[in-house]
Amino acid sequence: MSSESKTFDLIIIGSGPGGYWPAILSAQRGLSVALIEKKDLGGTCLNRGCIPTKTLLHEASFLVRMNPSGFLKPQEEILSYFKKTMEKKDQAIRQVVSGLENLLRRDRITLFRGEASFSHPREVLIKKEGKIIEKLEAQWILIASGAIPAEINTIKRDGQWVIDSDDVLRMEEIPSSLAIIGGGRRGVEFATFFKSFGTEVTLIEKENRILSTMDREISIRYKGLLTKNKVRVLTETEVLASEIDEKNKSIQLTLIQKGNKERVEIQKVLIVAERRGDTEGLGLEKASVARSKGFISVDLSMKTSTPNIYAVGDVVGKGFYAHKAFYEGRIAVENILGKKSEVNYRAIPICLYGNPEASSIGLTEEEAVREYGEVEVGKFPFMACGRSIAEGAQEGMVKIISEKKYGEVLGVHILGPMATELIHLGAMAMKYEIGVEEIKELVFAHPTFSEAFFEGALDTYGEAIHMMKG
Amino acid sequence: MSSESKTFDLIIIGSGPGGYWPAILSAQRGLSVALIEKKDLGGTCLNRGCIPTKTLLHEASFLVRMNPSGFLKPQEEILSYFKKTMEKKDQAIRQVVSGLENLLRRDRITLFRGEASFSHPREVLIKKEGKIIEKLEAQWILIASGAIPAEINTIKRDGQWVIDSDDVLRMEEIPSSLAIIGGGRRGVEFATFFKSFGTEVTLIEKENRILSTMDREISIRYKGLLTKNKVRVLTETEVLASEIDEKNKSIQLTLIQKGNKERVEIQKVLIVAERRGDTEGLGLEKASVARSKGFISVDLSMKTSTPNIYAVGDVVGKGFYAHKAFYEGRIAVENILGKKSEVNYRAIPICLYGNPEASSIGLTEEEAVREYGEVEVGKFPFMACGRSIAEGAQEGMVKIISEKKYGEVLGVHILGPMATELIHLGAMAMKYEIGVEEIKELVFAHPTFSEAFFEGALDTYGEAIHMMKG
Repeated sequence: MSSESKTFDLIIIGSGPGGYWPAILSAQRGLSVALIEKKDLGGTCLNRGCIPTKTLLHEASFLVRMNPSGFLKPQEEILSYFKKTMEKKDQAIRQVVSGLENLLRRDRITLFRGEASFSHPREVLIKKEGKIIEKLEAQWILIASGAIPAEINTIKRDGQWVIDSDDVLRMEEIPSSLAIIGGGRRGVEFATFFKSFGTEVTLIEKENRILSTMDREISIRYKGLLTKNKVRVLTETEVLASEIDEKNKSIQLTLIQKGNKERVEIQKVLIVAERRGDTEGLGLEKASVARSKGFISVDLSMKTSTPNIYAVGDVVGKGFYAHKAFYEGRIAVENILGKKSEVNYRAIPICLYGNPEASSIGLTEEEAVREYGEVEVGKFPFMACGRSIAEGAQEGMVKIISEKKYGEVLGVHILGPMATELIHLGAMAMKYEIGVEEIKELVFAHPTFSEAFFEGALDTYGEAIHMMKG
Repeated sequence: MSSESKTFDLIIIGSGPGGYWPAILSAQRGLSVALIEKKDLGGTCLNRGCIPTKTLLHEASFLVRMNPSGFLKPQEEILSYFKKTMEKKDQAIRQVVSGLENLLRRDRITLFRGEASFSHPREVLIKKEGKIIEKLEAQWILIASGAIPAEINTIKRDGQWVIDSDDVLRMEEIPSSLAIIGGGRRGVEFATFFKSFGTEVTLIEKENRILSTMDREISIRYKGLLTKNKVRVLTETEVLASEIDEKNKSIQLTLIQKGNKERVEIQKVLIVAERRGDTEGLGLEKASVARSKGFISVDLSMKTSTPNIYAVGDVVGKGFYAHKAFYEGRIAVENILGKKSEVNYRAIPICLYGNPEASSIGLTEEEAVREYGEVEVGKFPFMACGRSIAEGAQEGMVKIISEKKYGEVLGVHILGPMATELIHLGAMAMKYEIGVEEIKELVFAHPTFSEAFFEGALDTYGEAIHMMKG
């Protein structure tokens, strides 16, 4: 190693969305930035999360659309489509990673490959194979080291029978049957993905409903859609034990649901359950950075327990979304630059990219009732929306929750086509206090899915145009 | 006929979007409403326009996506897909029309089938086969009788060789070659539709660019995409003469482009050129309703030259969009109910549902420069957008035009995936004065196409994250 330490304004640990975005933001504002990555440039989002899974889900949605028309009958054709899907996924990863390399060069951000480790609150060592190869100093340090799967006691990943989402991205065969442990967004996304390719899917969730962070109605309707689509959904269920049957190339799972045991035989098990902050080897104790329940503790300005050290993204918990990391990263940079900014977690949309999509922003109906007492609920089903009818995408609805007195929008929840895009109308309305009455004054193009948002606002006062009263 | 005349608060002539929407609105507010339809319930939009063409374009977009993968090789398979597409279109029409029947029943709107004809400004006769079958009286009358194709001198529709968009919906074979006369939104939509099915397409436009009502850059880029996709685009071109060659089952067209004549042989010609208000048989003179250049004249409250008679939708011209008719209809009803409302045509999005989509709201760049002098332009290409990369939909861009001093959004123009949905972010921003700085404060979900709108706002001041500087 060079014995001299290199000095920067800001050192960022981790090159995922919580790392590269604040790196670019602060470089654009004149700071010198070092970015440290121990594994894949772009982190989980670009290599193992958002981007590759979106490619898989998008291609699967085509298969669902096309296959009832009988285009891919024999199993070999479906397998060939699966392999092409995997290739497209690799191609998408290559494009976004090479794009990111260009952005870092554009903004003169110095990239270091290796493991970061604090020696004190303003110094980070970079190690490769245990050896220190660089010593960096900076006034500010931002930790965006991401998260890793938390282990479950009763079943362990082996990469062959019991896999995680990283293993899915390397799959070469379509499993005939699959149990997915974890009925959150990612579990549901993988359930619809594998179902599209003909896999028998069992979705196992320990809470009393899947998608427990979303509005109860969306989660109940989604369960209904999965069940209709022959995905077996088991709530309040946990894995008691697992046993690999090498001879039959299968796994025996012992499940427990409300005290009742059940044994199921399955080809593979995919674990997409809990995650914890990836802080291994960071030497947080040397920088006095405190953790709580597996994540780094931060305040609303994204500051850790050590004033010059910030942390953002998956490593601080509170949901695992790339755009949450972007947003927290922006807030951290604003604070570093002397502006007092705080994160507002209610402004963050939650998106599910399964088939169909779902999304959520602000308060759920239950939360809104708890906080405001009485609220208004406007709803519009996609089956009454012209574009949905024209395109044969009629599942789901838009639901707008508003406050009674002024019609302020408190929450928007969408299940159905383009839900992950339409949610931004809710985001804009909530942020800039565009109430239900104001939404009614807008001109929405016909036919669009966005009209369902408009009619949801109209329905608040029973004025929806294209809907039969229930 | 019953000799008694029937009395309503409001008579509406035409059951398309400009008719049924105000019918429902005014019925919801307590007016008694008669709705008169001479042809298909739901008008052009439900039967021959928005809904059926969206089904065709959506199915065609699947074909474009799937066919490079080689699923539909032989011509018979493509023809079978074409026929299925046509069936889906018929199914969509049936669903929306039967939905509309239910809505009219729900709101106790009295539907009359027959031809409407004024006898005086407060009385309308309904005729069937020349005979008067009903006599209706009302305090207010709303004309929403739609538009019909204007004839071109040099070439006449015969329904076989020379067809219009209605004939397309009845097609049973895919033409090997097709000339489309009219390079506006509908001409471009049909060009991408037929190209998807392998037809050799020539698009003929008399102006110096296609999509002449949209932002110049969008129109130039769209021409580039069509050309790349092997659609022949001829601007500043008109048809001088046409001759049917029955033996060769083809048409000889003589075209003139900037003084140069060219003869082309083609299998079919589709005319989607100009339209004029459908006022035949309405007896407008008996109600003193004035027309101008083929359309009924109205003021911004949608009032005609006779104070108790309003007109909205295609019959008043100014663009042919269902949502313009909805909007004008709402304004008319508000005025009937005593509120003083005026139409703001800048608030109306323009949408093109071809492959790719395009959309526009507010001022084009040229108009903005003319009106404001200097303006800011923020642009973001979809090829730098994560979702576009993940889904392989990378053509196009978002362009946001804003005023220099306060960052007020003056116009938004989008070419690319989901353009027709994303445009509503622009609609909301413009209506409620959410400027470029305010858009930058929103949290956009990742990965979404909506992020291109966000980055377009960031680019206004050179702050886009995911874009290489040009």
